Amino acid sequence: MLVASDTTATASLSGAAAAPLAVAPIPPAGFTPDDVLAAHRGGKLTVGLRAPLLDRRDLSMLYTPGVAGVSSLIAADPGAAREYTWASRVVAVISDGTAVLGLGDIGPKASLPVMEGKSALMKAFAGLDSVPIVLSTTDPDEIVAAVTAIAPSFGAINLEDISAPRCFEVEQRLVEALHIPVMHDDQHGTAVVVLAALMNAASVIQRVMVDLRVVIAGAGAAGIACAKILLAAGIRDLVLVDSKGVLSVGRDGMHPVKVEMAALSNPRGVTGGLADALAGADVFIGVSGGSVDPSLVATMGPQPIVFALANPTPEIHPVRAIAHGAAVVATGRSDFANQINNVLAFPGIFLGALDCGAKRITEGMKVAAAGAICAAVPGRAAAERIVPDPFTPGLARMVADAVMAAARAEGVAE
Amino acid sequence: MLVASDTTATASLSGAAAAPLAVAPIPPAGFTPDDVLAAHRGGKLTVGLRAPLLDRRDLSMLYTPGVAGVSSLIAADPGAAREYTWASRVVAVISDGTAVLGLGDIGPKASLPVMEGKSALMKAFAGLDSVPIVLSTTDPDEIVAAVTAIAPSFGAINLEDISAPRCFEVEQRLVEALHIPVMHDDQHGTAVVVLAALMNAASVIQRVMVDLRVVIAGAGAAGIACAKILLAAGIRDLVLVDSKGVLSVGRDGMHPVKVEMAALSNPRGVTGGLADALAGADVFIGVSGGSVDPSLVATMGPQPIVFALANPTPEIHPVRAIAHGAAVVATGRSDFANQINNVLAFPGIFLGALDCGAKRITEGMKVAAAGAICAAVPGRAAAERIVPDPFTPGLARMVADAVMAAARAEGVAE
Repeated sequence: MLVASDTTATASLSGAAAAPLAVAPIPPAGFTPDDVLAAHRGGKLTVGLRAPLLDRRDLSMLYTPGVAGVSSLIAADPGAAREYTWASRVVAVISDGTAVLGLGDIGPKASLPVMEGKSALMKAFAGLDSVPIVLSTTDPDEIVAAVTAIAPSFGAINLEDISAPRCFEVEQRLVEALHIPVMHDDQHGTAVVVLAALMNAASVIQRVMVDLRVVIAGAGAAGIACAKILLAAGIRDLVLVDSKGVLSVGRDGMHPVKVEMAALSNPRGVTGGLADALAGADVFIGVSGGSVDPSLVATMGPQPIVFALANPTPEIHPVRAIAHGAAVVATGRSDFANQINNVLAFPGIFLGALDCGAKRITEGMKVAAAGAICAAVPGRAAAERIVPDPFTPGLARMVADAVMAAARAEGVAE
Repeated sequence: MLVASDTTATASLSGAAAAPLAVAPIPPAGFTPDDVLAAHRGGKLTVGLRAPLLDRRDLSMLYTPGVAGVSSLIAADPGAAREYTWASRVVAVISDGTAVLGLGDIGPKASLPVMEGKSALMKAFAGLDSVPIVLSTTDPDEIVAAVTAIAPSFGAINLEDISAPRCFEVEQRLVEALHIPVMHDDQHGTAVVVLAALMNAASVIQRVMVDLRVVIAGAGAAGIACAKILLAAGIRDLVLVDSKGVLSVGRDGMHPVKVEMAALSNPRGVTGGLADALAGADVFIGVSGGSVDPSLVATMGPQPIVFALANPTPEIHPVRAIAHGAAVVATGRSDFANQINNVLAFPGIFLGALDCGAKRITEGMKVAAAGAICAAVPGRAAAERIVPDPFTPGLARMVADAVMAAARAEGVAE
């Protein structure tokens, strides 16, 4: 998997305005398509035993007849399952394959490499066991029924890459049906890291965060959740834009979720398209998967902040954003600076929620996670350092501790 | 987990007729209840990464943006999922917790230690990855819907500890709905090993197997499946007995599955109870979970064969069976000789089915597995050696090779 090479996969943005424009690379810089396939061959996960099973004594202990004693104990005292099964540390990563990366509705089998990857990140960053589950149905009723049916197998549910607006309903219904943490990471993981990054970006340009004018391009899962957490954090001037234009009160034919967001946002009553919204704005947050004319950055206010988070192709290439005046640029990719990557958030959020036996994940726990991520940037935040390195030692533990404290304060911990 | 002790967990049957009767031990001999709990603390499984994920380069390769190339490939060519995901080597062990060991309907959480154990055996004996899934529903429609929904995540489905008669319907419907191997191991794993053991037991008492008169106590999942495979293997005089007595044509109030079995078995038209069936019989196969008067063994024919397979408490204790004249005795427990343990069969059956891309598991594949298990006993079979040691090196591979050959011969391999 590691390529013996001195090239770096992290593109430098220093002096990038003068550099030739690179096409967003697939595979990542320094790798060939064959390198990528080789790294995924046979899948990325394996199930192992926590203790050896080598002889008849082990067999009689770990299976029959020994295991009957453990099952009897749990049958008499269901709480013992937390101590004597693996479920209390296992996160199911569940997708129907309808909104995968920038690839869209590619189905369950094609989404499985992504879910395996997500499970791999749970282990690598938080030490959590995790199982990818991809679904043969996209019907919300069937998804809710299937996840509810298998829920006793797991300690928490990470919903992933389920397209909007179904994702809102599916998450809401599962949160209500289950007594374990359920989180649609495309919504809340992204929102948590965006909030953390924006806190530091505001500090870099020496502005008060709540005074910033924010435009969110994309009113899907991530866009709605980003809007909600930013509003909750005190942002007042926030405009959401979807493929048909600005979300404004009175616009016809909007899904109820968008009607609700239009009422909560857009205080100046902006109408029109993305260009109308961006004129004079301080922050662009792209979570649309589309492409945005980079010259629009020049129409924004002074020292504009550009978060172009679409994967694998950012809405605005970082080099172009800077060429048009962006003061702080972030993307969703690991091969540019300032990766707004959910991996900063979800491992710690699930670790904290599982460690304290939280029954659900509250808004307060998410905001606490954002604060921990913001604070994990070493020294002062800088234009190319508004989020911590995902490999910061102890990051997931820091996030988890903040999440646990919030869970206890809100009374949802065990 | 391993106890430093020179006691052996395998009870010797030599000269056992004179030994004091031991109560069937829970925990297994040589362990205390605390030993057992300690071995299960935190659960028995863990999910690991097949390659390290240590830095940003790994992250960009195994997750975004690299993984998009793999997902795109599978979206274009679904067959590539077999090579680039883990699913083709992952067996889901699925239970609703209704018929767990000898404990009965203890629910999903209490059954999870058993399913974890089963997954551990998949790994230890066949190198297969396996995930335990316990269900919050016992409704056949909901079970079929849930398993169908999650099926793209897995290469095969091992149904486990689902009570009869629902298990028959659930298995049948899933076999028809899915294009991956689905096997209810309590039925077919047990049946395969019973057939293998009976082949060797007949040889020990120097009888032709198909001439043996067989009585099966228990007409649940395992009893029905044993009856079917033994009839398929040529046994002609076979009588099934359930809690209400012998299954015979004309008995009122039987489930359709039992009506079918009554018609296929009991050629002498025996009626009455277990004592009536056992008089003069050559083989007792107990898969009832109940208790049987050991003195009935003395009413059987010469050199009776007793398979008392209930777990954790055999229907007839081996010591008593021998005291009453049994020539060959087997149980379901790992701490007596001749353990009729599904672990002899299911790891190899699933390994073979997955290795050849079988779309289902046929009767021919099961019989082939039984033949391989029978043949794996070293040297000549003996009264205390009618099945191979589960730790026989290469056993799962031998079974898998036989299963693959049968699958190819029947045209169900890839």
